[in-house]
Parts: sequence; structure tokens; C-alpha cells
Amino acid sequence: MELGIWDFTTAMNRSDIRLALPSKGRLELATLDFLASAGLRVDKPNPRQYFARLPALPGLTVMFQRPGDIVVSVREGSVDFGIAGLDAVEERRGDDGEILLLHEALNYGQCALALAAPEEWPVHTLSHLQSQISTRSVQHPLRVATQYPRLTSRFLDSHGIAHVLINAEGTLEVAPAIGYADMIADLVSSGQTLRDNRLRALDDGVVLRSQAVFFANRAALKSRPEVLDLARQLLEYIEAYLRGQENYMVVANMRGDSAEAIAQAMFAQPDLGGLQGPTLAPVITRAGERWHSVTIVVHKDRLIPAVRALRAVGGSGVVVSPITYIFEEEPERARRLKANL
Amino acid sequence: MELGIWDFTTAMNRSDIRLALPSKGRLELATLDFLASAGLRVDKPNPRQYFARLPALPGLTVMFQRPGDIVVSVREGSVDFGIAGLDAVEERRGDDGEILLLHEALNYGQCALALAAPEEWPVHTLSHLQSQISTRSVQHPLRVATQYPRLTSRFLDSHGIAHVLINAEGTLEVAPAIGYADMIADLVSSGQTLRDNRLRALDDGVVLRSQAVFFANRAALKSRPEVLDLARQLLEYIEAYLRGQENYMVVANMRGDSAEAIAQAMFAQPDLGGLQGPTLAPVITRAGERWHSVTIVVHKDRLIPAVRALRAVGGSGVVVSPITYIFEEEPERARRLKANL
Amino acid sequence: MELGIWDFTTAMNRSDIRLALPSKGRLELATLDFLASAGLRVDKPNPRQYFARLPALPGLTVMFQRPGDIVVSVREGSVDFGIAGLDAVEERRGDDGEILLLHEALNYGQCALALAAPEEWPVHTLSHLQSQISTRSVQHPLRVATQYPRLTSRFLDSHGIAHVLINAEGTLEVAPAIGYADMIADLVSSGQTLRDNRLRALDDGVVLRSQAVFFANRAALKSRPEVLDLARQLLEYIEAYLRGQENYMVVANMRGDSAEAIAQAMFAQPDLGGLQGPTLAPVITRAGERWHSVTIVVHKDRLIPAVRALRAVGGSGVVVSPITYIFEEEPERARRLKANL
Amino acid sequence: MELGIWDFTTAMNRSDIRLALPSKGRLELATLDFLASAGLRVDKPNPRQYFARLPALPGLTVMFQRPGDIVVSVREGSVDFGIAGLDAVEERRGDDGEILLLHEALNYGQCALALAAPEEWPVHTLSHLQSQISTRSVQHPLRVATQYPRLTSRFLDSHGIAHVLINAEGTLEVAPAIGYADMIADLVSSGQTLRDNRLRALDDGVVLRSQAVFFANRAALKSRPEVLDLARQLLEYIEAYLRGQENYMVVANMRGDSAEAIAQAMFAQPDLGGLQGPTLAPVITRAGERWHSVTIVVHKDRLIPAVRALRAVGGSGVVVSPITYIFEEEPERARRLKANL
Amino acid sequence: MELGIWDFTTAMNRSDIRLALPSKGRLELATLDFLASAGLRVDKPNPRQYFARLPALPGLTVMFQRPGDIVVSVREGSVDFGIAGLDAVEERRGDDGEILLLHEALNYGQCALALAAPEEWPVHTLSHLQSQISTRSVQHPLRVATQYPRLTSRFLDSHGIAHVLINAEGTLEVAPAIGYADMIADLVSSGQTLRDNRLRALDDGVVLRSQAVFFANRAALKSRPEVLDLARQLLEYIEAYLRGQENYMVVANMRGDSAEAIAQAMFAQPDLGGLQGPTLAPVITRAGERWHSVTIVVHKDRLIPAVRALRAVGGSGVVVSPITYIFEEEPERARRLKANL
Amino acid sequence: MELGIWDFTTAMNRSDIRLALPSKGRLELATLDFLASAGLRVDKPNPRQYFARLPALPGLTVMFQRPGDIVVSVREGSVDFGIAGLDAVEERRGDDGEILLLHEALNYGQCALALAAPEEWPVHTLSHLQSQISTRSVQHPLRVATQYPRLTSRFLDSHGIAHVLINAEGTLEVAPAIGYADMIADLVSSGQTLRDNRLRALDDGVVLRSQAVFFANRAALKSRPEVLDLARQLLEYIEAYLRGQENYMVVANMRGDSAEAIAQAMFAQPDLGGLQGPTLAPVITRAGERWHSVTIVVHKDRLIPAVRALRAVGGSGVVVSPITYIFEEEPERARRLKANL
Repeated sequence: MELGIWDFTTAMNRSDIRLALPSKGRLELATLDFLASAGLRVDKPNPRQYFARLPALPGLTVMFQRPGDIVVSVREGSVDFGIAGLDAVEERRGDDGEILLLHEALNYGQCALALAAPEEWPVHTLSHLQSQISTRSVQHPLRVATQYPRLTSRFLDSHGIAHVLINAEGTLEVAPAIGYADMIADLVSSGQTLRDNRLRALDDGVVLRSQAVFFANRAALKSRPEVLDLARQLLEYIEAYLRGQENYMVVANMRGDSAEAIAQAMFAQPDLGGLQGPTLAPVITRAGERWHSVTIVVHKDRLIPAVRALRAVGGSGVVVSPITYIFEEEPERARRLKANL
Repeated sequence: MELGIWDFTTAMNRSDIRLALPSKGRLELATLDFLASAGLRVDKPNPRQYFARLPALPGLTVMFQRPGDIVVSVREGSVDFGIAGLDAVEERRGDDGEILLLHEALNYGQCALALAAPEEWPVHTLSHLQSQISTRSVQHPLRVATQYPRLTSRFLDSHGIAHVLINAEGTLEVAPAIGYADMIADLVSSGQTLRDNRLRALDDGVVLRSQAVFFANRAALKSRPEVLDLARQLLEYIEAYLRGQENYMVVANMRGDSAEAIAQAMFAQPDLGGLQGPTLAPVITRAGERWHSVTIVVHKDRLIPAVRALRAVGGSGVVVSPITYIFEEEPERARRLKANL
Repeated sequence: MELGIWDFTTAMNRSDIRLALPSKGRLELATLDFLASAGLRVDKPNPRQYFARLPALPGLTVMFQRPGDIVVSVREGSVDFGIAGLDAVEERRGDDGEILLLHEALNYGQCALALAAPEEWPVHTLSHLQSQISTRSVQHPLRVATQYPRLTSRFLDSHGIAHVLINAEGTLEVAPAIGYADMIADLVSSGQTLRDNRLRALDDGVVLRSQAVFFANRAALKSRPEVLDLARQLLEYIEAYLRGQENYMVVANMRGDSAEAIAQAMFAQPDLGGLQGPTLAPVITRAGERWHSVTIVVHKDRLIPAVRALRAVGGSGVVVSPITYIFEEEPERARRLKANL
Repeated sequence: MELGIWDFTTAMNRSDIRLALPSKGRLELATLDFLASAGLRVDKPNPRQYFARLPALPGLTVMFQRPGDIVVSVREGSVDFGIAGLDAVEERRGDDGEILLLHEALNYGQCALALAAPEEWPVHTLSHLQSQISTRSVQHPLRVATQYPRLTSRFLDSHGIAHVLINAEGTLEVAPAIGYADMIADLVSSGQTLRDNRLRALDDGVVLRSQAVFFANRAALKSRPEVLDLARQLLEYIEAYLRGQENYMVVANMRGDSAEAIAQAMFAQPDLGGLQGPTLAPVITRAGERWHSVTIVVHKDRLIPAVRALRAVGGSGVVVSPITYIFEEEPERARRLKANL
Repeated sequence: MELGIWDFTTAMNRSDIRLALPSKGRLELATLDFLASAGLRVDKPNPRQYFARLPALPGLTVMFQRPGDIVVSVREGSVDFGIAGLDAVEERRGDDGEILLLHEALNYGQCALALAAPEEWPVHTLSHLQSQISTRSVQHPLRVATQYPRLTSRFLDSHGIAHVLINAEGTLEVAPAIGYADMIADLVSSGQTLRDNRLRALDDGVVLRSQAVFFANRAALKSRPEVLDLARQLLEYIEAYLRGQENYMVVANMRGDSAEAIAQAMFAQPDLGGLQGPTLAPVITRAGERWHSVTIVVHKDRLIPAVRALRAVGGSGVVVSPITYIFEEEPERARRLKANL
Repeated sequence: MELGIWDFTTAMNRSDIRLALPSKGRLELATLDFLASAGLRVDKPNPRQYFARLPALPGLTVMFQRPGDIVVSVREGSVDFGIAGLDAVEERRGDDGEILLLHEALNYGQCALALAAPEEWPVHTLSHLQSQISTRSVQHPLRVATQYPRLTSRFLDSHGIAHVLINAEGTLEVAPAIGYADMIADLVSSGQTLRDNRLRALDDGVVLRSQAVFFANRAALKSRPEVLDLARQLLEYIEAYLRGQENYMVVANMRGDSAEAIAQAMFAQPDLGGLQGPTLAPVITRAGERWHSVTIVVHKDRLIPAVRALRAVGGSGVVVSPITYIFEEEPERARRLKANL
């Protein structure tokens, strides 16, 4: 065999564009749901398959890895884009800026990396913990089991708490009971697992609040225009989708002398708005009354107040419809993207 | 320990507002689906968790119980609101009016509490059953196994059928084969379980038709204004959602000289309506033709006739969209609510 | 017993209208999803139940069979309508035209019936295969294992490849390794099962590209008007649903002197369209500016270009909504239906 | 139809012999395992089937019910034999001696019916609870939720604790948190469910220790000799099986001058025994040494001490084998059975 | 590429020895259980794997196929040994004696291929069916759906019943209700599926009683001595295992003057036996009494009578132990094997 | 709060004895099976529970951890005994001899830590790999992804292969395809996962052959006599069980003039043995023939030859029984244990 023929480095000199997604459990399902809802459905042939396609963006190769491995892949450049928890990104992003966060709040996968101790400990705060450690004659340093050594160590150092980290494979929650460690730093969502294991998070022990984020290899964005263009398309979909999910299209029939009069009555109501102002169209009734249909966009949290405000100015028959996307004039994060490169 | 410090009655003197939902099986899933679709998604951290939050109504504590226990909890006042099957409510609501039905048809969980006998019995009706029992020398009274003693007994008494009730823990359908009882009164949905066990419902043996209902503790509504306000908000969402689900928004482009002329043509079609009348807006075509867009709301059951009627008066390109909610001027059940307290 | 009373042929002289659906696995789920999304939800009481109802079309009896049995049932006339893969239809439809395809592309269940051989075979094309067989002294003829004998044989014959077919119960992929057959002709979707078993499809070995199709018994359409009417209703729903899924309703607010001017600017953009032209309605802003709301229908594949085109002519606040159905003036397949009978 | 022909009481006048087993969950599996291990495998065709056969006793009909219903069936005489938890038997056996316990310790299904209160209550014992209730001005009586009203009420009365019982459908553990009850009386095995729900059993709050038991209808044993004979056969199997499970057959090769001498050396060891004495047989070795094989039966709990005692008197090559049954001269419970009728 | 290099017939010229086992469902599990219990555990790495090893017989390659395909593989010679249901063997074994049955009763997988008709049919026997068909003017011939055309047709012909066979893919039980066929011939074990679908087997409609069987390719046995030797080893294991399963080793301590006297007392009991006679060994008791241990082999069905007989002649402390294998002097089927080749 | 009261180091000063078992997946099940078969059944109340009891050794606390964490726990002394794969032990045991291997071959959990590369690589051996790396101009060093950095690095160094290790969270098999690494070092059992991902183990790439092992903290064995005593008891059970599993008890009836003559005939057969020699007892036959029962212990692998040898010297009716334990005079590993401390 000719030596020149074989080169295991070819995988690095690739021309495809790659997006890595979480390969397991709740985060995988939530990510696939999120993307599908945003119009970016992933075709994953079967659960054992680690490669997939995204029909809406045929130029993209989708692959599945563990979250921590996604971050390393993007950092090293073997993958261009990744979606993972902020916890994984912050733990492994390194110090050299290889990773650029494109969207820092995809609004799912919320959890916190938190310090927890056995319930029977009389310690609830970091300052209490720190004073305990410093004033007594220590038999052994505080041992903290975690799968997030970098974030945990930095956090404890910043609070002046001497410690040693215990690396652990899993089921961290049982570590204090076994005596494997004194405390743990682990991801917490509902807190039920902590309670099941008689642990309690410190009151000010949140190391990091996390949710799913979207990020890219900075060098790929800079050097490959097709990667930058895909980043913008993905951001357009994601931003428009997230904004669309927060709003309803609201149409009401309103009695009133003129479109102008109706609009003015509406402007007087603090709970009515719309992206710019109401759209108005005439309604023709059998009885010959004067009505107008008004259309506004309302934030979901303000729906009931908005309905009541419409009623207050003569609205009835309020029809509320779902919105898939709202595209604004210029997506903010796409703007920032150019600046950050 | 000071005696005054501990008092196990504190749970009753609570200030939170509580909604109890079914804790298991098909009814739990259907209830969570219903609420989520109505914009009231429940965050249940995990299947073993009996408390949950409802982000759209942060003031509400959600809890999970078996249906019969929900009714007792609401009746006794340890819970303010409940959703359960009408069967459970009627069996356990008591005679003193502590429970007020707020919505009696949530349109899921349909079933019937029905009397069933072995297929080989030659008895198909209550009157036949009654004549059989009265004319022969009875060896033992008719034994009816049920988990609904109150409803079943009242029903059999009202038809003059002497009986004894057999309380049962479960798998009622096997009771007649074992000789544990002669007949059963049990919930029936598709009837497949009856057929599998060679049982047949009597033709007129329906004790109660049931579906999911929404109810409250009457005293809490009267004495706590914040409970009454939450009842109204929940009813607004539920009613608007149920009405929205039954209708489509239908938009058609119509050729026609004027908006007035188009509206008159539509009024002549029995299958076209809308909440009050069509909304009309001009369409500008490349060819310069005169078109209008008309928007109406159509009941789902009448969709195909409405499309055909629109075609009949010159409509084309009929676009049908989903509706999330329809809020009417004044929700009927909210009105009744005040009257019933 | 009187001989005349009993006649096992009564099942053939039925007056109900029947639709048979796939009874198992991925195709059953996909079919039930497809119908539910199209407004034709099937009520299947439980997984062991083979009969079901379709509430939107109460005149229809739904039943569940294996795909091949559906085709035979429709061909023989014991069932009026069927949904199954095109592969099953083509294998078993017979030569006498008893089956009429009503919709040949329901857009799910995509797969291919393909010829595959062991990976280590040096043969990639049919012509190569054919030359191999003809030029050497054959020890035994090429043995092809398949559950599609009719289609496979016709295909191999048309390419002049001598062969014998091996009928197989299942797990065809292991047949070549066992020596049960030399090649297989089997359904392939992602190709993963082939790869797992070290098989490779021939480059030009696709016998048939398949997806779910909707078909009927021709004689029933001809002789029973109620069957023909139901065929049209089903087609209306299916066509309008498939078209609706491919499009979004897009509403944008546009700055501009007049509705006419805005429309002309839009006509100049190749990526903007709508079924006929934009619908325009005035927007009244707090600041008193002149705006119009324009509404168009956009194909999903063209969404991002359309949004960019709207921005280019002064649009902003682009709100995108889902569409359930688009009914055209005259459904094409319903038209063809009359012609084909 | 002739009235006299139909009589729904025929199920009571049956001639078969019936054994009812628990129909669900862990107790069903444990019962089927126990019987199969004891040589009484039950053929249950499928999970939905409520009747089964027991091939080793072809005269017996096996049926499946909920535990409480089994007790009622046996008490009322529609079933002859039952296996259920002692808890179910004691709660529902009635006061008239219809039920005769045949075996009170089948050695599986261990649990306890226990009183439990919220962890934060400062009450750990019944006497403390009682003093609390009696000395303070009671706002409402102690409410105890349970599915065992008879046993719980009797227990609380016997300790002088005033209370009201709250009947509950299930998920009792959440009742105190909801305020549905103050305490619960429920089955406890590992205690994990109590801990998960922040409850704690009272130190002396065990109402009943329970395990699976075997019982019969007393009248059937008296009046039907074939039922009595089957009771004895079932008891033979069960007793011999339980005794067999507790012991091993132990064979050792022992150096020694004579069988007598070996036996005497063994008798001097407190940890060696056997049902009556060791069985001895000569071993012929290649080297011509004098050895004997000794066989004894050893209780499993004493295995390691017995092995060490054998080594101490010259034993080696100790081979331990399983025992399926040990039948004693006269099964104790069969003897008692006659006396108890 | 050289033509001579590639030859797809090489799989036929193999030198390994192959055993094919059922690849799915209950029969696969039962077969793996049977073999493991017989000392022939199969190492199947994972469920998707179609090849496996059998560590006790390292020369054997195990593979997994559908039962019908196993029979064809063995018949054609691509596999040497198979285990499958007798139904599959009889349907597909062909007429040329390629398949030799080595063991016709492995004692699991029992079922029957049976003719079944709708419950409401007034026909219970073949003769009744035949008279019905012959005397009336037939509208269409009796249509029988089956996956066993060869066995079913031969059976119906032998009873003079004119018929056409309907081939079906599956869910045969629903065929009569759909009108796809009039009757079915299908595998029946508990009969529950028939009852669920309102079908009833004819009283004399059993086409074939089936259970798992072990068979081989006759030519391989004849021409390859290593295959014949493996057949004998497999048969040794299987026969010794099946015999072992039916018996217990029973050891009792017996009071008695001499071994001879004890043996004579036992010979007088019809329920005591052993393969040839009891083995006797002296027991030395602490009290100095004369006892002997007797060992016999007892059939499981005769255990209780044997225990009672032992008691009758002075036995006590009866210890019953399991048997793994009983090897007889010359395995019957191995003898027959030579004759049949 | 008094500082002296709280001390988080108390968990280290414990007096219980602890055994840690794998907490998840196949290894957990295999370990629980192994222990239960060896007479050391673990009572684990439910899957979420991390502590358990072992009824046969009431002084022992059982806990569940991930394998790597078990090794660290035992090394650090928070746990006394552990069972895990040798791979985990060797990776994390450290260099200071804190861990003592008590049993190095529990005979389950077999796998190998192996180096694997993409199938298309032309490299099959370490030497080939090494020559490739050294002779070409390296673009980047060989990247090896593994969760076993210590073992992998030591192995590669010992073969002179320059490399960098890539730490990975999981799904290592996909790493080369993604370009995350060039090769992997991962656990391999059947090799199917490698094949599924188109990887191939190097011919001489086995870093470590592994199976389940039993180990202890050396200091605890030295300083706590109760820990040492428990170690011996556990070893007695484990060794006797493993030896028992490999053998059968074989009893044959043999025709022959005297016990001596039979024994001599047996000694002449190479396939007959027993721990020391056959045990012989007279058999009394109805026909008055002279027979003896001989009992020997036979290794499972030699069963068929032993049966044939018995037949050859006049044996018949060979009964084979299972053995639970074989205790030898002095357990070898217990002996070694003293020496190693």
C-alpha cells in the first residue's frame, strides 16, 4: 500500500456543513421537538442512527453526540454548529474564543447547576459554609463530587471556599450518603431527585442557570461563507419561531362609526396593541349595521386582559388564532453576528 | 414541646388556591392534553410527583388524586376546584350542595355507567328483569357488583328492582362468571371489555352518561373573591377553547362587482354565516380583475357544504385556518356562576 | 334447522361503505396521523379492535387489515376503499382493473422495493449482473428471496435476468448470509437494515418507488352512488389538506402611498405571489402613518425568500400562520374520477 | 321463554373446585412464582384471561380477582380456596368463621399495615398521639385515610384514640399534604413511598404484619369431601416445598476407620445433624484409602458452620445440592385441619 | 475482475454445521429456554443479531429465521438442523423426504391448526358443513383463509369439502367479519383470540396438532459424518433432559430390620419403583436405631402417591431433589436414526 | 449553632461494613443474578433505591454506584468491598495498593477494552499503525477517544505509538465518523456495535481482557477483623458456587460382581473420576440381580464422554443432578488472602 493514499486526517478537510444535536434522553427529544416546531424537522431514520438529514436545509448534515462531546467537536472544528445546554458549553468551551454563542436562550432544557448538601447539614448559604470551614480544625478538605469540575471550581474559588473536587461517573446524589463526597454540584430541574436523596441545594448555591443554546465554531463562520449564510438562515427560523410562539393573532368584530373612531378607542386601552396598529376591514351584516373587523397581535400572557379591553370598547366575537412565525425587519442576533466575528 | 405549637388542622386554614386533577391512566392524560390545548399547560415534573404548577395561572396549585378522592376533597373544602368524570361527582357529591358544577361538558372522557348481565341471560330490559324477579320464587336477591353504590341503588330503586349491592375492588367484569355477583354496574366506553367477558349491557340500563366536568367548592367561591376570580378566568379559557375547537376560519377570494353584492349573494346561501357577517377586503390582481377576500367563521361539521356554497357564489382559493379560541361577549357559564352562588 | 336460513354469503351483500386501513406498525400509525391531521380522525377503541368509526363521516365503517389483505379485499369487493402502500397495491391488484387508484401520493410511507446483494459481491448494476450470469457456466440459477414475487419477477424478466424466486416469511435480510437465497428484493427506506446485514442495493435495482396511496373498488364506485359521493368527499379533504400543508398564510404590514402602489411593488418581486393576488386592508397607526396590511399565501419552501422580498419592498412585522386546508375551485382528482370510471 | 328455565342463581350450585389468586401486580407475579416453584405451575393463557388451569391438579379451576374480592368470594362460597395477603383476609373475613386459614405464612408478600403521619409532626408514638388529642381543645377529630377501615378502626379504638376514617380510592400518601386527611393507615413494605411523600410511620403504629396466606371456605371443606382432599394435597405440596427451600442436601467425603467412628465424630459437632442421622456409604479411592461418603440435610442458614464442622472432623469435597421438597411423616397443618373443622 | 473469482454459489459449499432456530416472539423465547435448560444455552449477543453460538457445542453455528423459512432452509440444504413447530414442517417439508424428523415432541409450543367459523353459524362439524354445501345451490364456493394452504387443502379434500383457499398476510381472525373469507384455518392455542373475534373451532376441525420438533436435512446426515455425530449428541442431551424433567430423585429414611426386608416391603407397593430398584445405604442415628436410606426415581405425576406409599412402609423424612438428565442405556431415537437414513 | 456539633467528616468514621455493586444496566442485573445464584440474594426495594440488604449476611450494607465510582469508593475507604469490571478497577485503582483483588474471575461480564479504527483504514496491527505514523509527515498526532485514558495511554506508550487522548462522554463509536477522533479504545463484547458503526478492532489491539471481579480496601481488611471475616465468608460462598456450577452429580446403576470390581473398571476409564473416587451403594432389584449405585462428580464439559464411559463398563440409568456448591478443604483464595495483607 502506498503511504500517500491513506491519511486519517481527511475527516478534518471536509466540505459539508454540520450541526450536532444531543444524542440521548430528554434533551434529544426536546431538541427534535423544538426544531420540528420551528419548521426544521430532522429525519432520524432510527434510534441507533447517529446521522440524520434536515429536509428544510438540504445542505446541512445533522449528527448526534453527547452534549459535552458536541461542545468539544464544535470547539475543535470537526462540527460547525451545535445545540446543547449552556452548562455543557460553559464547562468545555475553553478560553480561546473558538466557540461563538449564536442564540443563548432557546427556551427549553431549563435547569441549574447547583451545590447541594445533605438535608441534615445545618448549612444553608455559602458564607455559612465558608465560615465553618475556616474556623474549625479541618480533618479533611471539603470534597465536592461533580461532572462540572471547571465551573464548580471557579465558583467555589470565587467564594473563597477551599475544596477538592471528586470526579464521578454518575448517580452523584448518592455520593454524600456513601461518604464518597461531602457535597455535590449537579444539574437540578424540579429538585425531586435531590429531595428523594435527602439533599438540599444551598440558598445561594446556583453555579450556573442553564437552558438550551445554539452555538458555532467561530473560525468556520469567518472562513466559510456558506457556513455564515446557514447560520443566518437558522437564526431567522429560530428567532421568528420563538417570537411567534409568544403571540396570538386576535380578530374582533367591533361596532363603531368609523375605522378611525374604533382605532382611537383602541389606542386608549393600555392592553391593546399590535405590532404597529390594528388592521381594519369592514364587516357587512345581514341587519345592515356598521361593523369593522380589527386584527391585532397580542402577547399570550396578555390575552385575557386584551379580550376584556376589546369588550370594553365594543368588541365581540373575538377569534384567536395561532402564529407560526413573526419575522421582524432585521433579526437582532443576525445583526450582532456580523459584529462578533 | 409546647402543645400550642403543633396543630394538625393547619392544612385546612390555607390561603392557596387548589385544583385537583385525575392522577392516573387515560383520564389523567386526557385532562393534561385538554388543559394544554386550552392554553393551560400543567408542568408535572415527573410521574411520581403529586403537585404541579400551571404557568399561565401562577396563583394556582395543581395536585393529582384519584377521581373519587378529588370529589371528596372539593366537597370537604381541602381543594377548591376539581376536574373528574361526572360519574365520580354524582356518586360522591353528597346532598348538601357543597359542590357547584362550573362546566358540565368538557367534551372528553365520555363513558356511561351501565348495568350489564351475562350474554346468555334472556333478559334485555329493566322491565323484563323486574318481572322475572317478582314472579318467581326468589332463591336469593339479585346481586349487583359495582363501585358506584349510590347511583346504582338509586337507579334500581327508581325502577322497582329489588337488589343487594356487592362492593368490589376491581375486575368487575369477571364477577358474574365467578358467581361473585349476578350483574354488574360499571363504566363502559367502547363495550369491548364487556364483550371480552361475555357480558351485555341492558338496552335501557344506562345509569348515567358521563364525561369530564369542572367543579368547585361552593363555599370557597362565596367567601374567597380570589377563588371566584380564578373560576371566571378558568371558565373564560375553557369556553373559548371549546368554541374555538368547533370552528374554522375560512377565507375565500370572490369575484364580484362590490362588497355589498358579494355579501348579499352569500346571505342567500344557507350554509354560509360567520359570527355576524363576512369581513371583506379588496384583492388586487395582476390582471386587474375585481376580487374581494371574504372571511367567515364556519363550524367544522359544515365545512364541506360551506366550501361548496362559496364555490356556488363565485368563490375560489378557499383557505381554511385553525382557531385557538373564540371569546364571546359574555361567557354564559360565567353569568350563570353568579346566579348559582 | 332450515337450510335456507343460513347462508354464509350474506357478508357479500352488504349495504355499508367500508374503508380498510393498515393494521400494524409504522404504516398504521402514519395513516391514523395522516387522517387525523386531514380532519378525518379515526376512533379506534383499543389496539385489539379491528373495527372503528370515523366521526366526521358517520356513514363509513373503518376496518384494519394487513396491507396485502387490504388490496385483495378491495379487489374482491368485500371492502370499498383502502389505504396501503403502492407496493402492496401493485403486487396484488390483478390484471382486470378492479382497483382504481384515487390518490397516488399521500406523501407518507415512502420507501422503495429494491434488489440487494451481499456487500462483498463485485456487482453494482443490473447489466453487470446479467453479463455475469450469462457468460459463466451456471451451477444454479440466481435465487432471489422476496415477498413481492409478481413485481420482482416482472422486473427481472424485463432486464433479461434469469432467476428463480424464493418465497420467504420474513427477515429476508439474513437470507443471503444463510445461503437461503443469493439476493433479495425487499422494501428499503433508510437503508440501515441493509447495511446492518452487509447488503447493498444495486445502483439501478429499484423495482418500484412506493408511498401510501388511496384506492377503491371500481365496480362499487360505478354501481353505488353513495360510494362515489363518499369518494369525492374523501378526496376533497385529502387534496385540500395536502395543499394546505404545503403553504403558509403570510401577513405583513407595508408602508406605502396606496394599496395599488404596494400591490405593484409586490408584483415586481418574483418571490411573492398568493393564489391570485394580495389582499389589502388599511392599518391605522398611533403615529398617523399610512400603512397597509397585505395577506398572501406562500409555499413553505419559499418562506425565507418571500420574507426577504417583503422586506425589500417595505414590509415589516411579517406574521406567518398555519393553514389547515386549501380548497381549489375544482379538485383535479375528483374531475379525473368521473372520467376513469 | 319459560320463566322456570332461567335462574341466575345457578352459578352458586356449582360442582367444580375453585382457587382464586390475586389478579394484578407484584402479588400476582409472586403467587404464580411461588406456586410454580412448589410444583403447581398455573397455565394462564394471556394477561387478559381471568380463568386458568393448574395441570398438576386437573380437578381445580383457577381464577383471578383483586385480593379483597377473593376474600369475599371465599367467604360467600362462590370460591373454595384463596391466596391473598393476610391484610385483605383480616379486613374482610367477617365475624362468622366462614373462612378457615389453612396456611398462615407462605413466606412472600411481606408487608405491614401501618399508621403514618407527616414527617414534620412531632409525634412518634401512639401514647403521644393520644395525649395530644385528649389535652387540647380539638378543632376537628383526627382524620385517618385508609382502605382498611375495619382493621384501622379496631386498632385505634384499642389504643383509645378518637378518630374519623376517611375512605380513599388510592394514592393515600398524598392525602395529608392535600389536607384530605391528617394521617394514613396503609401497606408499607420498604418504606420508600412513605419517605418519598415525607411521611413517617409511628414507632408502634403497626396495625398488622402481613404476608401471603392460603385459606378456604369452611363450609365447603365440611360438606364436600373432594374439597377437603384437595386442601390436603395443596397443603402437602406447600409445606414440603417451604421446608425443602430452607435446606440443602450436603454430601462430604470423610476419612475414618469405620462408619460408626465417623458418625460418632459427627454427633460431637453441634452444627451437624440431618433429619435423623447421617447416611453413610463407602468410597473406593484409587489409592486404596478408606473413605466414606456421608449425607446430611442442613438448614441454609447453618451452611457455612456445617461445612466448617465437617472439615473439623476430616471431611472434604463437600458437595451441596438443592432440595425440591421435604415431606415429613405427617404434615402438621393437615393434622390441624381436621381438628379445626 | 476475473469471472472465476466471484461465484454466488459458494454459500452452498460450506463446511460448517448449522442449526436454525425461530427468530421471533414466543417460540423464540421458548426454544432458547428449552435449549438452555437442556444444557445447550445459546449466546445471542443482541436481539438484532441473526447468528449466535452454542458454547457447549462449539462446532455448531446457530442462526435465526422465521419458522417457515427454517423448514425451507433445511429442506434445500443451506441449513443442517432446525427446530420449529410441526405445523411449519408439515406445511413445507415437500414430498421428497429431504427432511428427517429427529425428535417429534419437544414438549413446548403446543398448538393446533384448526378450522374455525363465525360463532353465529349453525355448523359445528365437518359432516354438517359438507351436507350444507352439497345440498343447497351454492352462490360461491366456501372460501377458507389460511397461511397453511397445503395442510388445509389436503384436510378439506379428505373430508370431501369443496373449497377455495384465500391466502392472507395476517390477522386472519378478522377475515370472516370483513367478508374476506367464510372460514379460517389458523393456529389455536388457548382459543382466546378466536373468542375475542367471535369465532368457534369446529368440533372435529383439527387439521394438525403441533408442538416444537427437531429435524435435519437427510442428505447432510448421510454424507457428512460430523453432522450425524452432532445429531446424536443433540439427541442425547434432548432425550436425557426431557426424561430428567419428568422425574424426581426421592430419598427416604426407613425403619427396618434389613435392607432386603425394606426392599421387599417397597416392592409390594405399586406406587414405588425406580429405574431398576431402590438404592440402600445405612443410616446411623444418635439413638442407635436401625435405619436405611432408600433412593428411588419417581415420576413427577406420581409424587404424592409415592410419598404416601413410602410412609405406609415406614418411611419418613422424604427428601425430593431435582434431576437434570436421565441417560438411558441406548437412546431410542438415536437407534432409530441409523435405521431411517 | 455550636461548631463542634456539626462535622461533615462523620461519614468516614463509620462502623458498618459496605459492599458496592454496579448501579445500572446489564452489569447490575448480571451481578444480582450471580449473587442470588451463589446464595447471596440482594433485597433491593425498588429501582430508584441506592441502598439494599443482603439477608444471608445481615451485617453487610449493600449500595449501588457506577463502576468507576465503586473503585474510587473502595480505594478511598468509604466502601469496604466492591464488585465491578476489571476494566474499571485497573483504570482507577491507583498506584498505592489501596485495593486488593479478592477474586479476579467471577465468570460473567466478559468483555475487552480494545483499540478500533474505521473499517476502511488499511491498518490491522499495532506495528503497521506505528510504522505509518512514524514514516509520514504527520499533520496532526493520532487522536484516540476513550473513557479509559490511563490504560489506553499506557498501552499505546508501551507499543511506541505517539498519540493524544480525546476524552469523550459517550457514543464513542461515532467519534471517527464525525472526525472527533481517529480511533477509539472502548469496551467490546460481541463486536456488533463496532460493526454497526463500520469500525474494526486491531488484530492485536486488546488493551485489557475484563470480567467481573471482587475486591476490597486493603486497610479495612487489615485493621477491622470483622471486615476480614466477612471477606472470607464471601469468598467461601463465591468459590464454592463457581466450582459447583461447573460440575454435575452423576449417579449410575452398574452391574458387577463387587463394589471393588466396579470401581476398578471405572478407574480404567479416563473419562470417569470424581473428587476422590466413586461412592458405591448396593441396589436391590426385583429380579434379584446384583447391582450397585455409583456416584461421581463430573465436570459439565465432560458429561457426554463420562456417560459413554459409564455405559462402556456396564452402567445404565444414569441420573444427573445439579450441584449448588462444592466446598474444598481449604479455599485457595482465602489462603492467599492472609498472605497478601
